Amino acid sequence: MYAVMDNFKAPFKGITKDVNGRKACYKQDWTAGIYSGFRILAPTTYIFFASALPVIAFGEQLSRETDGRLSTVETLASTAICGIIHSILGGQPLLILGVAEPTVIMYTLLYNFAKKRADLGHELFLAWAGWVCIWTALMLFLLAIFNACTVITKFTRIAGELFGMLIAVLFVQEAVKGVVSEFKIPKAEDPKSEKYQFQWLYLNGVLATIFSFGLLYTALKSRRARSWRYGTGWLRSFVADYGVPLMVLVWTALSYSIPSKVPPGVPRRLYTPLPLDPASLSHWTIIKDLGKVPPVYIFAAILPAVMVAGLYFFDHSVASQLAQQKEFNLKKPSAYHYDILLLGFMVLLCGLIGLPPSNGVLPQSPMHTKSLAVLKRQLIRKKMVRSAKECIKQQASNSEIYGKMQAVFIEMDAAPTTMSVAKDLKDLKNAVMRSESDGDDTKDKFDPEKHIDAHLPVRVNEQRVSNLLQSLLVGLSLCAIPAIRMIPTSVLWGYFAYMAIDSLPGNQFWERMLLLFITPRRRYKVLEEDHASFVESVPFKHIAMFTLFQLMYLLMCFGVTWIPVAGILFPLPFFLLISIRQHLLPKVFHPHHLYELDAAEYEEITGAPHHSFSRSFKEREMATSGSDDSGPEFCDAEILDELTTSRGVFKLRSTSFKDDKRFQVHPDEDPIQQV
Amino acid sequence: MYAVMDNFKAPFKGITKDVNGRKACYKQDWTAGIYSGFRILAPTTYIFFASALPVIAFGEQLSRETDGRLSTVETLASTAICGIIHSILGGQPLLILGVAEPTVIMYTLLYNFAKKRADLGHELFLAWAGWVCIWTALMLFLLAIFNACTVITKFTRIAGELFGMLIAVLFVQEAVKGVVSEFKIPKAEDPKSEKYQFQWLYLNGVLATIFSFGLLYTALKSRRARSWRYGTGWLRSFVADYGVPLMVLVWTALSYSIPSKVPPGVPRRLYTPLPLDPASLSHWTIIKDLGKVPPVYIFAAILPAVMVAGLYFFDHSVASQLAQQKEFNLKKPSAYHYDILLLGFMVLLCGLIGLPPSNGVLPQSPMHTKSLAVLKRQLIRKKMVRSAKECIKQQASNSEIYGKMQAVFIEMDAAPTTMSVAKDLKDLKNAVMRSESDGDDTKDKFDPEKHIDAHLPVRVNEQRVSNLLQSLLVGLSLCAIPAIRMIPTSVLWGYFAYMAIDSLPGNQFWERMLLLFITPRRRYKVLEEDHASFVESVPFKHIAMFTLFQLMYLLMCFGVTWIPVAGILFPLPFFLLISIRQHLLPKVFHPHHLYELDAAEYEEITGAPHHSFSRSFKEREMATSGSDDSGPEFCDAEILDELTTSRGVFKLRSTSFKDDKRFQVHPDEDPIQQV
Repeated sequence: MYAVMDNFKAPFKGITKDVNGRKACYKQDWTAGIYSGFRILAPTTYIFFASALPVIAFGEQLSRETDGRLSTVETLASTAICGIIHSILGGQPLLILGVAEPTVIMYTLLYNFAKKRADLGHELFLAWAGWVCIWTALMLFLLAIFNACTVITKFTRIAGELFGMLIAVLFVQEAVKGVVSEFKIPKAEDPKSEKYQFQWLYLNGVLATIFSFGLLYTALKSRRARSWRYGTGWLRSFVADYGVPLMVLVWTALSYSIPSKVPPGVPRRLYTPLPLDPASLSHWTIIKDLGKVPPVYIFAAILPAVMVAGLYFFDHSVASQLAQQKEFNLKKPSAYHYDILLLGFMVLLCGLIGLPPSNGVLPQSPMHTKSLAVLKRQLIRKKMVRSAKECIKQQASNSEIYGKMQAVFIEMDAAPTTMSVAKDLKDLKNAVMRSESDGDDTKDKFDPEKHIDAHLPVRVNEQRVSNLLQSLLVGLSLCAIPAIRMIPTSVLWGYFAYMAIDSLPGNQFWERMLLLFITPRRRYKVLEEDHASFVESVPFKHIAMFTLFQLMYLLMCFGVTWIPVAGILFPLPFFLLISIRQHLLPKVFHPHHLYELDAAEYEEITGAPHHSFSRSFKEREMATSGSDDSGPEFCDAEILDELTTSRGVFKLRSTSFKDDKRFQVHPDEDPIQQV
Repeated sequence: MYAVMDNFKAPFKGITKDVNGRKACYKQDWTAGIYSGFRILAPTTYIFFASALPVIAFGEQLSRETDGRLSTVETLASTAICGIIHSILGGQPLLILGVAEPTVIMYTLLYNFAKKRADLGHELFLAWAGWVCIWTALMLFLLAIFNACTVITKFTRIAGELFGMLIAVLFVQEAVKGVVSEFKIPKAEDPKSEKYQFQWLYLNGVLATIFSFGLLYTALKSRRARSWRYGTGWLRSFVADYGVPLMVLVWTALSYSIPSKVPPGVPRRLYTPLPLDPASLSHWTIIKDLGKVPPVYIFAAILPAVMVAGLYFFDHSVASQLAQQKEFNLKKPSAYHYDILLLGFMVLLCGLIGLPPSNGVLPQSPMHTKSLAVLKRQLIRKKMVRSAKECIKQQASNSEIYGKMQAVFIEMDAAPTTMSVAKDLKDLKNAVMRSESDGDDTKDKFDPEKHIDAHLPVRVNEQRVSNLLQSLLVGLSLCAIPAIRMIPTSVLWGYFAYMAIDSLPGNQFWERMLLLFITPRRRYKVLEEDHASFVESVPFKHIAMFTLFQLMYLLMCFGVTWIPVAGILFPLPFFLLISIRQHLLPKVFHPHHLYELDAAEYEEITGAPHHSFSRSFKEREMATSGSDDSGPEFCDAEILDELTTSRGVFKLRSTSFKDDKRFQVHPDEDPIQQV
């Protein structure tokens, strides 16, 4: 409570700090990107495709739900405009902005409400949504000014994963609804036209089933390409990075292999107006209509605005947080408060020009950071291990060993910010020193291979150029709308299913649900693989209880989205959940269990005996020994892939409890008790 | 050469020995089955489905290729009749008989030849085929009498796997041809009928694509059910054993979910006459027509007969050999010579009643043995390890340890043939004793866990009842033809593709081909998993040469099947290959490399550092510790699944070189030099 009061006492404190912090490195943000030269194009195109495809899909969804009032043109325009603004003026340039599923749901609910009111209707829907944006912006300003971002540490795994699961469920619902709709005549279309005769309608449905499942299957497979055995490293990387847009292309091409005797319109393709069609131009001047909205609706807009503001605050902060995970080892400061302020301005702008607003998106934001990360470790590591081993031979003390390794690190690491070496190597230093205090227990002796692997950091090229370029590309893709209209709608339904399934691995809520279905005698299979520590440390009964509670909560949240008007309140349970987590759950679950099941700040601890990091390196060495050592970048990507979930969240922390336990077994230093 | 001469000097020698050997245990063959009670029904139904489905598929293929002259009725009848005869009178009752793909190809080639001759034609085709059978039977008699089966040791992996690959390629060809045909109007049908109008024809093709891929995907997935994490052990076993027929059922049911507005005939379903239709009855009296065949064709029948005889001799012996692999640890004698004699009689019978003959089939024969195998080891093992560890504590000598273990084994093993204990435990004894001679090298010390795991045998319930019952069931399924006719043809095309793909894993030729496509820097991935020893011991260049030679040879064999009349010679290259392997290849490849690449008698050696056997057991113990120990049978099946390829061939030999090398490093005992 003290902290909250402090926040009110010091308005603008967070924003000021953020602005000052980012101002100091603003110039370097640009120079670092420009000095990277053409190499910056790889992460740029990667993130462009990862962020443009869902925006197109959401545009089509929005177009269906709002009877064409908003469509792909608007979602692309919003993503491009907000992206450009954020990349230039934003605090954290690693954060990617875009129109996301929560926005689509909100706008759908707003439209459904507005179209039934005689004094709003189809015409004034966007003007009313503009008022919602105005109120939302106001609330975001307040949240930013009064330092609300200090509460983001309260956003634990439980709320984030529940929200992720809800989105996944909604995606699946959209995919199923989409495929089913392919068997039906769309409303507002002429049922007499040839393509809606039974034989063609049914054929359209059957083809849609093929295209949806085809895209889903091939997209999921291509995602895993980096670990394929076949093909060159370049090809595998290419397929893994661009497999999904590639598959959209392939299935679109396949859809043109249908014989010409089939009437046009089978299969159905995206319907979106061109950017210069009247339908796309009408909303830019929506500001003129703001006054036409009856005052009662202007004030009624406050309720949805509260929801949108809460949602954006939560989503934007979590996306930013995941783009700046500790493991990425970022050097430049965060800017949560200032970014919320800027988000407020962007929401306002979008509202006034009739666009659905953008906010920080998952999984693109952590994917962006990941794509800019380089494991500079290969070369450094080899030299460090060698020097450490030499020292051990000479019976040097641990502090001498660390001194040698630090010297090698400084010598090898050409990064401009050598001042941060101490911070970079802090964990490593701790590990080395700790092993000394253990005395002569040979098992826990300092092992250079293991320690250096576990504690050497990742380097991220923090700059603004890739974000700006990808936003410009999104803007340019407005010109590609004639090509986008060639995509069969069924491919998009498959893409929705793909997004849902791809988001599941690494979501501990999902993994715990699966665990409930594993027969007791098979649970050892989970232990054999990489797994979160709760599997070992929390009794199964408590895991089951916690998971069932979360499942019930999920079903409730999903149920709320179905309620006609009150559906607008669907973010409410998530805000509630943060409070439930803080006050109610600790009374039901043992704090230690709760910590393991729902570590704060997305902390996760590996319980597996084998260490992915060192394993990857061993593989790497086997791979490179006996052949030339070219192309380490590709290997970096593969190692990072192994370490992160498909949502870009790190699966393991380099200093997990288990790791520490290997070196320090004094019960009085048990980190759990320190929490 | 001496051996061949000996064979001619002692006609009937092999047959006499076989008959005497099997006579001694004939009664026990029945009692062992009957005493098993209802438990024998599990392997019976398992093998029935595994053998009936391909026979139905081949029947449909044959029906298309012979314009309905032969169909599913005939293939089922032949399989049932020959199966019943073999299960009662056959030498090795573990061998499963059935109409196989080579027979179908041969009959297709015979039909294509006959239908073009004015004096044979559609009418006399079966009579002429009868003559081919008569000549074939004669040759099989001669092969049996003159002990030709002594050459089966010359049937090395290269020929067997090449033949397996050819069959796989032909299956894929059949699947592709089948799916393509669904888009076309069948010849001899009325193109004016409604179902052949473009919209329905195209819909039929699209649906066929769905059903084929659907069956293929689900059947492949269900095959792996035993290692699933979800579901109870019983369910997983059920899906793994009956998944494929189950999926045929599921997709057939799904094909009835098509709306009734689609005209009947879309999707197409199996067309086969009923057993009592005139088309099915005509051929039983084909013996009357034998005289009507012009003499020139009677003698011309000798050429195909040579091919069929060679093919059957090869196929029957290899199937029998794989059903009696050393690892199955069978107690009753083999009967290769006698079984070829009996096969001759069955071919003769089939020829005279106008049925395509049956021969020993793969993979059903080793699958049959596998389904009857029980790993009695769990309980025995625990006690043996315990007693061995006690002995080691007491510093007992290795022979004392072995003595203790033998005592435990005899005490625990309730099998009727305790006389064979010495033989059962021979490998174990050798391993224990050998470790003694190594002296005090601690690394290679006798390790009870490892040794006992590696050398404890499997027990097979050798009897005739399961074979007889499954043959009767095949016979009974003739009554189910009205139900069989409900299966969509497209499901069968998927099934052909399934059979092809399912036969590939474990085929070293295939695995070597894949190896060629793995980039050098990725080959370590192969080494990390279970792999054949050649990967480590033979230079990559030689692996590539050997594989390319085999691939060229495969393409040639496949090419021969396309030649209109000379296609009948397609088995010739395989007979040649046996000679090439014996005389030519040793001149090109180093004998040691050749041994590793093409071990005789389907020998295979694991090179992997981890031992599947012991690994499986460790998993098992983790699974059972802490929960009740019920249902070991299911685990047996899973362990056996891991140890064998999907064709039922053992992947590892319990006494591989690598295994031995762990204990004995004396170069003068290198087993390679002893070969």
